Amino acid sequence: MIKDIASLQNSIVKEAAELNLKKYRSQRREFLVEGVRAVQEAINSGWELTAIFFDDTVSGEKISLMLQHNAVSCYHVSRSIIERLTDTKNPQGIVATVKEQHNSLDDLADENGLLLVLDEVRDPGNVGTIIRTADAAGAAGVVLLSACADLYSPKVVRSTMGSIFHLPIITDVEKNSFCSWCNKENWALWVSSLSGGTSIYEIKWEEKVALVMGNEANGVSEDMLKAAKQKAFIPMQGKAESLNVSIAAGVFMFEALHKQALATK
Amino acid sequence: MIKDIASLQNSIVKEAAELNLKKYRSQRREFLVEGVRAVQEAINSGWELTAIFFDDTVSGEKISLMLQHNAVSCYHVSRSIIERLTDTKNPQGIVATVKEQHNSLDDLADENGLLLVLDEVRDPGNVGTIIRTADAAGAAGVVLLSACADLYSPKVVRSTMGSIFHLPIITDVEKNSFCSWCNKENWALWVSSLSGGTSIYEIKWEEKVALVMGNEANGVSEDMLKAAKQKAFIPMQGKAESLNVSIAAGVFMFEALHKQALATK
Repeated sequence: MIKDIASLQNSIVKEAAELNLKKYRSQRREFLVEGVRAVQEAINSGWELTAIFFDDTVSGEKISLMLQHNAVSCYHVSRSIIERLTDTKNPQGIVATVKEQHNSLDDLADENGLLLVLDEVRDPGNVGTIIRTADAAGAAGVVLLSACADLYSPKVVRSTMGSIFHLPIITDVEKNSFCSWCNKENWALWVSSLSGGTSIYEIKWEEKVALVMGNEANGVSEDMLKAAKQKAFIPMQGKAESLNVSIAAGVFMFEALHKQALATK
Repeated sequence: MIKDIASLQNSIVKEAAELNLKKYRSQRREFLVEGVRAVQEAINSGWELTAIFFDDTVSGEKISLMLQHNAVSCYHVSRSIIERLTDTKNPQGIVATVKEQHNSLDDLADENGLLLVLDEVRDPGNVGTIIRTADAAGAAGVVLLSACADLYSPKVVRSTMGSIFHLPIITDVEKNSFCSWCNKENWALWVSSLSGGTSIYEIKWEEKVALVMGNEANGVSEDMLKAAKQKAFIPMQGKAESLNVSIAAGVFMFEALHKQALATK
């Protein structure tokens, strides 16, 4: 059943809007998802929605299609309420609250291929774009070591373009325990480097590679550099000092995917 | 000689701040550059600076090094003036005004390798990041067809991380005249596609390729699709529908660079 809400002071609206802040997301383990396609992806991927808010710009037909398989609270709201729920300038007319799903490293133990690991990647756009790229490249999963941007922040969720619902993402992983886990489960720990190590075109790709991408300004942290089995770099020309971390991650992942495809031919 | 300016109402400050708007940039053919490294890159690359504004967070030593080879007006200003000149939250303490340098397509006629062409790429962060990546990948140049984000907007300039000063960039190029020029100068016109065409790993790279990347939502425009000699795609796995345009450009360019390096071995 669809209920109408007109007031910004409505407690349901207020509580949903609080999910723009990490404090409330952590307490309730829920987050906000904006846009028809992203909400649809959440539903199709079997994530638990707790509420849908939509305004007059979204057709009733779309909403009823979404609700067909979901017993979720649904609110028809004013434009100003949609704007209150999002941090975008021209929001799409639909926002859902969704329950977080927490994977653990052990869900990945039997996987192989490439595991993408983020080490203090702070920019939400970078984290989201890397998750989207990891999905497109068929990575086994993404690991966010401690001190990355919050996975469930609206900007990260938006930048993933729905990919947050597609592949296992493990957050807040402590560095030492991650390195031990890699050892135990035979994931070869590689770090990306600006120079030094082996070119991605010369390197011998392994069956299970956990590739670490580092912080935007400082690169991979000392701890991870020390623990790494291999350093890999992208050969560059020109005068640029470095690549944006999400571009570097993309070049790495698609080269890995390509080499793995060749190996299984 | 260094002059002090304390007032936000100073006419020199006001005029410089106007360069945040496209209208004034177009009139005066100048733009703003923020940050020690970017200003240094502009100087090292021989671009003409018209003024430097710096606050107390920047050491006098740095400034005098910058001024050694440049007879440029230099202003010691308050933090609030620096904040007035930039659109960033925590600006670095230095902003310069720099004269635009305009390349034409004919500067590229004798080049070879890869020319990256942007077709209605609207997001300033994407345009800037693609220019930075084109520099790192050793592309011959970047062409912005009409309806891209403005090259000289502060966000594009910032996202290039100094690469705007490193390689020829030609802006506001009309589509039809670009296609004619490619024909005349033997640049093979390729478009990136989401599917259809030839995989970037199977395609036969040519000596002179002008690769077109399309709009964030709609891809390459009909006009450019029709004019293209080849459609090339990045093979994907997983459930993501597409890649971010700057990631796709990165994967394309580094694969081209790698293949060209192999060909000349």
